[in-house]
Amino acid sequence: MHYFLAVRQMMRSLKLLDTILDKAAKYAEVRKFDVNNLCSARLFPDMLPFVAQIRIACDTAKATAANLSGKEAPRHEDNETTFAELRARIGKCLAVLETYTADDFARTTATTMVRLPNKPGKAIAADEYLFARQIPNFYFHVVTAYDLLRHNGVEIGKNDYYGPLDFVDA
Amino acid sequence: MHYFLAVRQMMRSLKLLDTILDKAAKYAEVRKFDVNNLCSARLFPDMLPFVAQIRIACDTAKATAANLSGKEAPRHEDNETTFAELRARIGKCLAVLETYTADDFARTTATTMVRLPNKPGKAIAADEYLFARQIPNFYFHVVTAYDLLRHNGVEIGKNDYYGPLDFVDA
Repeated sequence: MHYFLAVRQMMRSLKLLDTILDKAAKYAEVRKFDVNNLCSARLFPDMLPFVAQIRIACDTAKATAANLSGKEAPRHEDNETTFAELRARIGKCLAVLETYTADDFARTTATTMVRLPNKPGKAIAADEYLFARQIPNFYFHVVTAYDLLRHNGVEIGKNDYYGPLDFVDA
Repeated sequence: MHYFLAVRQMMRSLKLLDTILDKAAKYAEVRKFDVNNLCSARLFPDMLPFVAQIRIACDTAKATAANLSGKEAPRHEDNETTFAELRARIGKCLAVLETYTADDFARTTATTMVRLPNKPGKAIAADEYLFARQIPNFYFHVVTAYDLLRHNGVEIGKNDYYGPLDFVDA
């Protein structure tokens, strides 16, 4: 079932993002600056800062799981000001996502109409919601967070973003 | 079938990216600079430039369709130096992707082992290939291209990235 798969993949990406945040913290130590200075980094003055990129990546994953399974997502306050708090935010989100099983998505099909809490009176087909809205939005914020760190010199690469892939001999 | 859906979504994102490049060209006209100056823009000196972000986004979409359907992707030379050429590259890629139908992916299942031309002797399960490698890679390059333009002041927003979504009254 690709809805559950997509949620599992978002969990994997969030765990990788957490490791990337750890690398940023170690980089800041070596270069002797306060890693929390990166929390307010933006690529342009009217773009959202780094903290918001992390929060929205988390909330998008949480909403994807909740809305595709007909559950309610617990609300997490947007009050983080440090890397430690952002990593805790990712942890809280992962703990919620861990509660989902494939069974939660078993009744959802391509034509299931998904109602969104923040769009009263509107609905969107499950596959359109996942592929056209949630996956692009999730990666928008994950990649922008990565790009912000790279732009600020943090030594990370594509492998930190993908993580290990399950290749086999064939 | 979610393999075909994912390819259709990449096509949609590439069309939106083409429109974003057009907006960048119009922005350059208004601000009286040569839009092609953006081709070499990078977020950090050891990151790939804007031209490469577009090429790799195209090639990732093309490879996803080819490898998940057992077809061969035509090779497109990496020789673009202008926005017009980059938009033509997107057009060439879209023309290839337009040839695919849902039937091309009908024999591919979650456990189909996908062999990749650039990984001789290795294979990866179709779902792992799509969700863990191709979708993250595709959006990595699309979002980094978007971020590069935003960082350079181009006036684009989230709606340019998503495009219109099929919400209905419910």
